[in-house]
Amino acid sequence: MIGKTIIRTRYAETDQMGVIYHANYFTWFEIGRTEFFRQLNMDYKDLEAENILLPVIDVGCKYMQSAKYDDELIIQTRLTSLKGVRLEFRYEIIRKSDNVLLAEGYTKHAFVNKELKPVNFKKKMPQVWNLLNQSIE
Amino acid sequence: MIGKTIIRTRYAETDQMGVIYHANYFTWFEIGRTEFFRQLNMDYKDLEAENILLPVIDVGCKYMQSAKYDDELIIQTRLTSLKGVRLEFRYEIIRKSDNVLLAEGYTKHAFVNKELKPVNFKKKMPQVWNLLNQSIE
Amino acid sequence: MIGKTIIRTRYAETDQMGVIYHANYFTWFEIGRTEFFRQLNMDYKDLEAENILLPVIDVGCKYMQSAKYDDELIIQTRLTSLKGVRLEFRYEIIRKSDNVLLAEGYTKHAFVNKELKPVNFKKKMPQVWNLLNQSIE
Amino acid sequence: MIGKTIIRTRYAETDQMGVIYHANYFTWFEIGRTEFFRQLNMDYKDLEAENILLPVIDVGCKYMQSAKYDDELIIQTRLTSLKGVRLEFRYEIIRKSDNVLLAEGYTKHAFVNKELKPVNFKKKMPQVWNLLNQSIE
Repeated sequence: MIGKTIIRTRYAETDQMGVIYHANYFTWFEIGRTEFFRQLNMDYKDLEAENILLPVIDVGCKYMQSAKYDDELIIQTRLTSLKGVRLEFRYEIIRKSDNVLLAEGYTKHAFVNKELKPVNFKKKMPQVWNLLNQSIE
Repeated sequence: MIGKTIIRTRYAETDQMGVIYHANYFTWFEIGRTEFFRQLNMDYKDLEAENILLPVIDVGCKYMQSAKYDDELIIQTRLTSLKGVRLEFRYEIIRKSDNVLLAEGYTKHAFVNKELKPVNFKKKMPQVWNLLNQSIE
Repeated sequence: MIGKTIIRTRYAETDQMGVIYHANYFTWFEIGRTEFFRQLNMDYKDLEAENILLPVIDVGCKYMQSAKYDDELIIQTRLTSLKGVRLEFRYEIIRKSDNVLLAEGYTKHAFVNKELKPVNFKKKMPQVWNLLNQSIE
Repeated sequence: MIGKTIIRTRYAETDQMGVIYHANYFTWFEIGRTEFFRQLNMDYKDLEAENILLPVIDVGCKYMQSAKYDDELIIQTRLTSLKGVRLEFRYEIIRKSDNVLLAEGYTKHAFVNKELKPVNFKKKMPQVWNLLNQSIE
């Protein structure tokens, strides 16, 4: 499954180079994750209510072209790896007006509880784990 | 007592107008509060550990001149009002290189617990309340 | 005219109090302005292309209830004052799920050029000025 | 040469997990770059005044432990690669209180002008290029 969301860039996200500041792309990836879970009929905030957090442990992003203020962007999100205690997402940021790929990146996460201790997600929530597992691309 | 802190503006805080985006001044006010508490030998994070939070309920800021990237800024913070369940701070943002006042603002806060219920701070922590009360300008 | 936009809050916008950090509301007000202009068939970025900027000179916000992660929010934006060199907007932030007013605020702006010198907007763009003037509430 | 800077984390940078939101580390890397240039007696803003920008084209970060609110952090910055049109920095984020490495990352940049066209930096500013080249670790 490929999660798809559209956002519009904000003035607050620009910098004095006249483009979107690069760190904001990771915020967009996070929006992509939230919407990916929603498309699977899960709410990321429900996972947190179940005492499961997904802190980021490794991220990367390559920037091909700059997003600018007021651009509409398509965020595409895929789950690319799922293990007992880890998962990985990949993302594409695409400018909606002309379908140009602006950036692509990944985030790796651990399943932990609120004390930030690792959780074996497969054991704790086998049904949700299966649902996620079937969505891998 | 007037709390004083110096910060340097960040590229991330600029916008495409070539100046610092206005919402960041409220982040600087928050730094001013943290350092104000530290100058009183209190740590704001210790208050949180005591289950006392200070959410913002009212804020304002007037902007006279723009801060720019890499400017050094003096944040001046004063406690201007303290009641059983409320307190108010006032701030000045001053450019260090020429001592020009760039902006001034205020934030009003409630004393609440982690469930965001009001707390009578004067009753709960009378010594800290006294310390704060003596610092009012 | 009342501009209306819906946004969803982001994990990046939360703080360790478990609610949305207060400075982000000013970013939402900015989204409200951008969409207000769009509803009038103007693009704020076209104004910038015409060498007219709208830096913020005075802002305020009152917070009644906290927005939380993943909330859908309605941003309502009204132009409340327009003069030759100044304009003022007012905003309401409403939680979509139950229509509760979370916060209300204002921003005042000057019309300036890219050198941040005041511009008499009424003289420079009388048609746009008229369009804005008719939208005042 | 290793650039060293100390910052203190901000409440605004926390998220509802109770730690610093991961995207902020890239803002700290940017502070590290600014201070790295300053230690070489160059100002990054002077480069921009010379019509040379350093947009980010590739970034990555690994997170070992979480930074928390009010932590003092040491940002260590090294220039690890310099070519005619590209350069790469590496960073370590170290908690000052106990010298623990919290995160490490890199950023790759292109030399471009304000129209975002590539610039041959070695040809355009040979002296600055030499200075940078001698600082590589």
